[in-house]
Amino acid sequence: MPELAGLAPKGTRRMGANPHANGGVLLRDLQMPSYRDYAVEVPTPGVRGIGDTRVLGPFLRDVARLNDAQRNFRVFGPDETLSNGLEALFEATQRQWNGQTLPTDECLAPTGRVMEMLSEHQCEGWLEGYLLTGRHGVFNCYEACIHIVDSMFNQHAKWLKVTSNIPWRRKLVSLNYLLASHVWRQDHNGFTHQDPGFIDVVVNKKAEVVRVYLPPDTNCLLSVMDHCLRSRHYVNVVIAGKHPAPQWLTMDAAARHCAAGIGIWDWASNEGDQAPDVVMACCGDVPTLETLAAVSILRAHLPELKVRVVNVVDLMKLQPHTEHPHGLRDAAFDALFTKNKPVVFAFHAYPRLVHQLTYRRANHDNIHVHGYKEEGTITTPFDMTVLNDIDRFHLAMDVIDRLPQTGDKGLYLKRRLEEKLVAHRTYIVRYGEDMPEVRDWTWGRRSP
Amino acid sequence: MPELAGLAPKGTRRMGANPHANGGVLLRDLQMPSYRDYAVEVPTPGVRGIGDTRVLGPFLRDVARLNDAQRNFRVFGPDETLSNGLEALFEATQRQWNGQTLPTDECLAPTGRVMEMLSEHQCEGWLEGYLLTGRHGVFNCYEACIHIVDSMFNQHAKWLKVTSNIPWRRKLVSLNYLLASHVWRQDHNGFTHQDPGFIDVVVNKKAEVVRVYLPPDTNCLLSVMDHCLRSRHYVNVVIAGKHPAPQWLTMDAAARHCAAGIGIWDWASNEGDQAPDVVMACCGDVPTLETLAAVSILRAHLPELKVRVVNVVDLMKLQPHTEHPHGLRDAAFDALFTKNKPVVFAFHAYPRLVHQLTYRRANHDNIHVHGYKEEGTITTPFDMTVLNDIDRFHLAMDVIDRLPQTGDKGLYLKRRLEEKLVAHRTYIVRYGEDMPEVRDWTWGRRSP
Repeated sequence: MPELAGLAPKGTRRMGANPHANGGVLLRDLQMPSYRDYAVEVPTPGVRGIGDTRVLGPFLRDVARLNDAQRNFRVFGPDETLSNGLEALFEATQRQWNGQTLPTDECLAPTGRVMEMLSEHQCEGWLEGYLLTGRHGVFNCYEACIHIVDSMFNQHAKWLKVTSNIPWRRKLVSLNYLLASHVWRQDHNGFTHQDPGFIDVVVNKKAEVVRVYLPPDTNCLLSVMDHCLRSRHYVNVVIAGKHPAPQWLTMDAAARHCAAGIGIWDWASNEGDQAPDVVMACCGDVPTLETLAAVSILRAHLPELKVRVVNVVDLMKLQPHTEHPHGLRDAAFDALFTKNKPVVFAFHAYPRLVHQLTYRRANHDNIHVHGYKEEGTITTPFDMTVLNDIDRFHLAMDVIDRLPQTGDKGLYLKRRLEEKLVAHRTYIVRYGEDMPEVRDWTWGRRSP
Repeated sequence: MPELAGLAPKGTRRMGANPHANGGVLLRDLQMPSYRDYAVEVPTPGVRGIGDTRVLGPFLRDVARLNDAQRNFRVFGPDETLSNGLEALFEATQRQWNGQTLPTDECLAPTGRVMEMLSEHQCEGWLEGYLLTGRHGVFNCYEACIHIVDSMFNQHAKWLKVTSNIPWRRKLVSLNYLLASHVWRQDHNGFTHQDPGFIDVVVNKKAEVVRVYLPPDTNCLLSVMDHCLRSRHYVNVVIAGKHPAPQWLTMDAAARHCAAGIGIWDWASNEGDQAPDVVMACCGDVPTLETLAAVSILRAHLPELKVRVVNVVDLMKLQPHTEHPHGLRDAAFDALFTKNKPVVFAFHAYPRLVHQLTYRRANHDNIHVHGYKEEGTITTPFDMTVLNDIDRFHLAMDVIDRLPQTGDKGLYLKRRLEEKLVAHRTYIVRYGEDMPEVRDWTWGRRSP
């Protein structure tokens, strides 16, 4: 009957033709500030920063500001915008809140562009819907808590994989996770908050849609986040610190390093144009700090040792290029990690992930990974690394174990380092904080 | 004041002394039927079963029945007791339901011992509370959906790890997951329901508290579940099928195989007392089926080839004994997998997990794993294996690729197998079901 047929919606009112069901059609590029304007000065490697995400905050604030008119950028998270160091956002916008307010409430507004609810599920669902309808966003979350949405992430990644092969579907903005309160700085919340396994779930999904970044300092974080916010149809996971921490790279160096995704830090290495005796690899901010501290010990006490430092920002560089679009070709991997020298690898997350990514590499048998091994409690920040054998002393001792040519001098140093571990233990039990030589250690200052 | 001090509870009414807060104190062993009484007859390997969990159902029914008086056994799950093949439970008990009932309701009772709610979170929370207060239970769930409780599992595993070192805490019953509708038989639900990654989350937790079992047939499932229900203070993950599938082992053989956790299936191998040319390893019910079908093709067409079949029930056997209490010593691992022969490994879940567990083994470079690689849709059961290169034809072709000594005869067979894959594709598009030679394939009958 024509009168019934006439009830059917027409044109873009039809479900399948509704542009909101193909969000890429509605998508407008973000207006982006220049991330370089937020750079921290790094006159020499090792200068103290205020916390990587605390510098990212003003950058995100200005992204929110620049896109206020086109109303297509939001930041989502449980109740952690402040706790993750992104307080600057509230200079430009507020938490969206349509209900009653009390005089004691802070940063609430019916027009806010920060979406907070202490339900990771709700935040993930909001953000997915926002992206699917053609907008831009970031999910900031504690690293351990993001496991709560593993299953939702899985479904979104599957959706991205399938739709990327459907010609009429336009690409969406990437789903960006910023995991800003991570395993190594949960010394105060304790064991329940220590879980770096989300990226193990992520890398199981189709390589073409997943990306994992572990910027070692503030300038790298700025470069990575700028890249992620501009990318399309991926899931990007960015793991970053919020605590005061040493800064390694100038903005120019950081931009180059992040573009490469992995590289030798010549300024920290001493092998020159010769083959190194050992490769000290690191991935993540705390592992990078501990690796450089270990390198400084080794170079001070065993100066004849040729040490190469390799830092990994883009985790998927480790995988063969046949497995992931970012993967290094074997020749490039071998040029970094050698074909036959020991590699002592300090890794942010569970060690097995590095083996899982590198098992096809020529030098895999020589790669010895230190990472989180499910040890931890409420303790000091440095003790978290000690409990998991990823601290500077264990790393340096591992190098000595792998290099018999360090001989008696090496064994002597190893005994001194074992003593350091005992001193550490004694000190934290007595004073409840880390030894001054650990807290105040700075790259380039001779270690005791 | 004495009258206020007198309000404080005394003895076991104090929070810290309440026996319900130390459930192991209240724990009573389950009354267990003999699992051997539920065995299926396997006169020859390859006889058709009715679905592995459908035989487990009567066993669980009788566990429920035998413990009805002591009221300490429950089965938890979203809405999948029937769907996972455990319908026999309703002969002994009902779904617990305290609300109003309608004439169309089925299997509801205020005294039921099956706890169903379509919320994996609720089921997990119920079960954890039940275990923590000294009772016994099983969580049955679709494999892909169990990711929903990743984060809750993580916390329970951390709790088990910490409390196992506290002397006054008595051990609890293990948290038993039965994942009964798995990735390879989600051909009807499609890509969203295909995710075998929960065990990747599980193996990140402390080795002393996690166990993963993939019984290849009904009798093995009975043996494994009997073991899990008796175990203490672990998380056990059991992955099993519910669809009619071939049966391989008699009850005696199954009990021996599960006690070992891994072993050579002599009846399927033909290397005798010589070294094999290739090891065909399999883990999981569908990978085992496809491996044996591949073996039958290879043995029929390349009879001079010496093929060894290794089946893995207890996944953690693959890890070194220094990493997991169940891990094989290197000599035992090498005795199964050789030190230098190609291993074509058909694995239930994401292939990288096998590499992650075996990277320290002597023969690791020769282990070639086929598993789920995030390909799938709504299709036929066999096509799910084809899409992920884990089907009999791809496995046999991989063996030929790894063994140049198969020569022209091997290459000839490979071309025939490539034709089979084309025929498969053509047939399923036309008929919507698998080719009769695939559906009706039986071990011991000469393959075409």
